[in-house]
Amino acid sequence: MDSTFVVGIDVGGQTSKIGVVDARGTVLAQTVIRTDTYDHVEPYIAELAEAVNKLIKESGTEGKVRGIGVGAPNGNYYTGTIESAPNLKWAHDRVEFSKLLSEAMGGLPVALTNDANAAAVGEMTYGAARGMKNFIMITLGTGVGSGIVINGEVVYGHDGFAGELGHVAAVRNNGRTCGCGKTGCLETYASATGVARTAREWLELTDEPSVLRGLDTIASKDVYEAAKDGDKLALKIFEFTGKILGRSFADFIAFSSPEAIVLFGGLARAKEFLTEPIEEAMNANVLPLWRGKVKIVYSQLKESDAAILGASALAWEL
Amino acid sequence: MDSTFVVGIDVGGQTSKIGVVDARGTVLAQTVIRTDTYDHVEPYIAELAEAVNKLIKESGTEGKVRGIGVGAPNGNYYTGTIESAPNLKWAHDRVEFSKLLSEAMGGLPVALTNDANAAAVGEMTYGAARGMKNFIMITLGTGVGSGIVINGEVVYGHDGFAGELGHVAAVRNNGRTCGCGKTGCLETYASATGVARTAREWLELTDEPSVLRGLDTIASKDVYEAAKDGDKLALKIFEFTGKILGRSFADFIAFSSPEAIVLFGGLARAKEFLTEPIEEAMNANVLPLWRGKVKIVYSQLKESDAAILGASALAWEL
Repeated sequence: MDSTFVVGIDVGGQTSKIGVVDARGTVLAQTVIRTDTYDHVEPYIAELAEAVNKLIKESGTEGKVRGIGVGAPNGNYYTGTIESAPNLKWAHDRVEFSKLLSEAMGGLPVALTNDANAAAVGEMTYGAARGMKNFIMITLGTGVGSGIVINGEVVYGHDGFAGELGHVAAVRNNGRTCGCGKTGCLETYASATGVARTAREWLELTDEPSVLRGLDTIASKDVYEAAKDGDKLALKIFEFTGKILGRSFADFIAFSSPEAIVLFGGLARAKEFLTEPIEEAMNANVLPLWRGKVKIVYSQLKESDAAILGASALAWEL
Repeated sequence: MDSTFVVGIDVGGQTSKIGVVDARGTVLAQTVIRTDTYDHVEPYIAELAEAVNKLIKESGTEGKVRGIGVGAPNGNYYTGTIESAPNLKWAHDRVEFSKLLSEAMGGLPVALTNDANAAAVGEMTYGAARGMKNFIMITLGTGVGSGIVINGEVVYGHDGFAGELGHVAAVRNNGRTCGCGKTGCLETYASATGVARTAREWLELTDEPSVLRGLDTIASKDVYEAAKDGDKLALKIFEFTGKILGRSFADFIAFSSPEAIVLFGGLARAKEFLTEPIEEAMNANVLPLWRGKVKIVYSQLKESDAAILGASALAWEL
């Protein structure tokens, strides 16, 4: 068997990134197609398959590709389906994604999971979690996603949807309204969106001076830039965000006792402001036996490649 | 190989229960020795081994015992040790329990874990979780213990101590002080002790009439009896307890997406008062995709046998 490459596809709301990857995690070639110009799955799959075939040809890996790994919102590992994904117009209902793509690719096997689980597999295969058998990946992007690895295996649970740690209760009473319909979810505080929300709330509720007051709209990136410039309110916002994360991490540790929690995503770039408050709150809220023992580490995958690598890593297990 | 029996040992703070068990989960013979009369582990192990040998002889299973499973507070599956167990005088430090017992038993293999993990294995092998690959066992006793099963395997985590769900934050602010040194832990509310504590608190804080007012000391059993007699305050206490449990269960579901949560232990006897508020709070706090889908079930093991059965079930995996 000389199949020594895999294809990784990261299906996002706007674009789908495709890459051909070798066993060391080098992305040999990559390309992008639109995701949001399709109302139905069939034409989208047709273009996706065409792009994959073209990329395989261009990278000189024809006949050597072992399989395709896909990370997609609401992707279900067990069934290979994408279900009720609000950001994918062609997947508001249930879509047999793996089956359709495999058929369009002449029977090449396809493995599918959600983006955060894919990121966890990527980190375990090529990144910061190499050699770890028990860790929790937390993706801090627009939302908060998670991929849980226990004994070297991603946790999919009874139905394939395990690992929704962005929706545990970070705040029980009077918590912020979440897109999922609940209140107080971790992702309403500890995502990029959550950080911007904290900024807007605090600017309105206090008179504290801050460079953020001059801005028309505030994104988490603005809060990060302000913190780097020493803005006190921005620094406090990251302290608060880290505390909220650390408290929840303590509960996660009680569950699966991981070796490390691996952080990834846009907001994880603010590590110089997050690590200390996370560790402080985490250690204050775990049982004594774990105090100071669980590492907070950051993704080691190149950000532009990470989503493709995560998805591709799934395909090695096919 | 004609070894078709196992021995289960439940090491409790006061007594240690020993039983010889067959593959169907029938306890052929059982006995009890004291745990609390020993300051050192060696004489305790000596008496334990003697009692086990006697029981094997009495039950006519000599030469047919495959191994010994032990459930003990702070028992570590990976290392076979018991560490800093506050309720075991001879295990305030680290004790090489499995090794010592196996030596005393002429080399018979010994598997050790904590009581709640043992209960989970027992339920999976002989009880309410037969055929389930993903469930969470919650033991509602003096404290709250847990055993998590994912993909048919107990979760031990990086260090062997995973599954301490009694110590997640049920209440974040001004929570009750827990024996572990933290505040707001689930077990300060939802254990037998927690229920009695709620009763004492509410009797002091309100003027509500209740038969519980007449009692010198209040145990959870008294609250249960009062609830059965229709005492309104007692009924409210169970509603509150169920709500606290259900909210935390929602977070557990976001983690491992289990098929069911299995309840066991003294307090689980109050199921007629707990199930409804648990399910209500749980379903109000999970993501829509899990609403109404995760079962709350109760242990099916005979209470007097359950601890022995749980421990014994471990030995089948040896």
